[in-house]
Amino acid sequence: MKTSVVIIGAGPSGLLLGHLLRASGVDCIVVERQSPDYVLGRIRAGVLEAVTTDLMERLGLDRRLRAEGMVEEGFNLATADHLIRIDILGLTGKHVTVYGQTEVTRDLMDAAPTRDLTILYDAKDVALHDLDSDAPFVTFAKDGEPMRIDAQFVIGCDGFHGPSRKAIPASAVREFEREYPFGWLGILADVPPCHPELIYANTDRGFALASMRSATRSRYYVQVPRTNRIEDWSEERLWDELAERFDPISDHGVTRGPALEMSIAPLRSYVFETMRHGRLFLAGDSAHIVPPTGAKGLNLAASDVAYLSDALIAFFKHGDDAGLNGYQARALARIWKAERFSWYLTKLMHRFPEDGAFEHRMQTAELDYVAASRTMQTAIAENYVGLPL
Amino acid sequence: MKTSVVIIGAGPSGLLLGHLLRASGVDCIVVERQSPDYVLGRIRAGVLEAVTTDLMERLGLDRRLRAEGMVEEGFNLATADHLIRIDILGLTGKHVTVYGQTEVTRDLMDAAPTRDLTILYDAKDVALHDLDSDAPFVTFAKDGEPMRIDAQFVIGCDGFHGPSRKAIPASAVREFEREYPFGWLGILADVPPCHPELIYANTDRGFALASMRSATRSRYYVQVPRTNRIEDWSEERLWDELAERFDPISDHGVTRGPALEMSIAPLRSYVFETMRHGRLFLAGDSAHIVPPTGAKGLNLAASDVAYLSDALIAFFKHGDDAGLNGYQARALARIWKAERFSWYLTKLMHRFPEDGAFEHRMQTAELDYVAASRTMQTAIAENYVGLPL
Repeated sequence: MKTSVVIIGAGPSGLLLGHLLRASGVDCIVVERQSPDYVLGRIRAGVLEAVTTDLMERLGLDRRLRAEGMVEEGFNLATADHLIRIDILGLTGKHVTVYGQTEVTRDLMDAAPTRDLTILYDAKDVALHDLDSDAPFVTFAKDGEPMRIDAQFVIGCDGFHGPSRKAIPASAVREFEREYPFGWLGILADVPPCHPELIYANTDRGFALASMRSATRSRYYVQVPRTNRIEDWSEERLWDELAERFDPISDHGVTRGPALEMSIAPLRSYVFETMRHGRLFLAGDSAHIVPPTGAKGLNLAASDVAYLSDALIAFFKHGDDAGLNGYQARALARIWKAERFSWYLTKLMHRFPEDGAFEHRMQTAELDYVAASRTMQTAIAENYVGLPL
Repeated sequence: MKTSVVIIGAGPSGLLLGHLLRASGVDCIVVERQSPDYVLGRIRAGVLEAVTTDLMERLGLDRRLRAEGMVEEGFNLATADHLIRIDILGLTGKHVTVYGQTEVTRDLMDAAPTRDLTILYDAKDVALHDLDSDAPFVTFAKDGEPMRIDAQFVIGCDGFHGPSRKAIPASAVREFEREYPFGWLGILADVPPCHPELIYANTDRGFALASMRSATRSRYYVQVPRTNRIEDWSEERLWDELAERFDPISDHGVTRGPALEMSIAPLRSYVFETMRHGRLFLAGDSAHIVPPTGAKGLNLAASDVAYLSDALIAFFKHGDDAGLNGYQARALARIWKAERFSWYLTKLMHRFPEDGAFEHRMQTAELDYVAASRTMQTAIAENYVGLPL
């Protein structure tokens, strides 16, 4: 097979890019290792910045998002005994939209046939070849048959564990990484949220997050030691822990219900420099990971895709390669700022085992400062809604 | 001897408090271990917030400060190759005043005789007694003779190494401390400053600060490992280091001259809770230390004194002890915020040996964010000029 752009990975960044290219008449094929059901089964964050909803709107695929997404005009930072509301609409004039990443993926998948976007699922053993040349190609096995796609560009939207980043020689790159000494134990349940807006809480028992997918579906997390396994936690124990942390500060208190999903995710900050190697470009989680605090992951993938789709379209429509040559610098400037915010909010809201009494007071002082300073609230809000592209 | 309030320490906080009490007709005596010349020989920071200049104005002792102090309407954060100007006047409507702490002390000392403020210098072996009772007293030796002052209150303005804090039983207190793995090597010289406004620089060679006392007197610092001794540095080597760090980014480049003073100071964050024990109250460095980054030390002492003088005057004029009972909570709220800012600015602008590549990129990302965000510049400026009392 032959195409202009082969996109590896049919998560939200790969599908967004594919739709944007197709909408401008650029040929592309999306190759995905997993099945459609598997992709839709991955539960991820669900707070969308304007950068993400704008792309969906540009594609005309925002109908369900507008109808079902919850407009979030504020969120809360909390200590053990009080909330600090960050009035994001009042402070920045902007809002974010609560709409599951899974739903974004579903909307993009559902629109693929009518938009003439080819997605090849269940592509096994994806490998990238001749990236240094003008004629790179990708091989994989589909239904047991070997396949090959020749393209002018290969785009790695295949996440942290995909083959794209690994195809870049180690000599050409620098990695930046920070692992956190804890994970997030999460539970999803069909129960009304404890509070009308998200709460990020730094309590004496550690960090906890109360969020929601809808008025009847809640998503909670608590900080647990990195060594904890999901078997260490019963649903009951987790609900007890959540009630302990949120009953004192939330409007309604925690309502319990059977878990639809329960899992532990590690927290990591990671940036891979370079985002380009010859004819390969990386976007989204394949090049960078943020801890989930602040919900920047998907939105950062969306801004990569916004830059990269413009660059590819300019190349194919006008033979202009300035955008492609400038992609890495443009993307990294925004990535590092989002990495900073995610790290800042993680540091501010979690208990770190290595921190002493002084560092803990620094957290308290920062929260007290935020509570008292409209300026600092605005700084947090402008990052939360997303810095300018 | 007998008085209402005995103040231990004739540095700026003790003298400010003494003058404020005397201006309201409250009896007090200041006791100082050192000689007047020794006190004036201590070189300290010289950036005054409004909280400090307002107290001098209230005392009518701001004539020389207004005439000779330099109004600072902005300062700079810098990387190795560019300046980020923080327009403190434009962003907050306020300014700070560059005027040496030594000069503040001198103005307060010079005014003592005409304001009927008694200062006993060269008081050796100062000891505090019966602080738990209604009749505390202080003993010391003056010219070899034992002396005793009975008072209703004892105020510890005797700095980090003075006897006041140590007079509080360990069981009644909590200490919070952070030592930094570096010190500031400083030089004072009669040379014109390299730049019209202060520069805090985070360069590949480490932190450096370019500041000035006047248009002809400069004060520079560089970050050095904590293990460095002053003997490790010649003036020439220090000027070379300063030129390396400031020539690329300052307007005029570094002008060299003979050192009037050269020394290494450690950097420490420290808070002592409690600030009150019976009839003893602590103010300024006796209760808390900030690293010099951001120049909060003297200004924090001034805000302690502002709260405490009001409280003592209310007590002696109206028998109202609410201010005294509320002093610690009021003072600590501001102290912790200033500790936070000093720690933040120290973390942002220094190279920490324990930091890896990721943490260094976080500094760069924070500086890039500050450079791009008027909101974050305002947050820094509002702390720099001093948070509200």
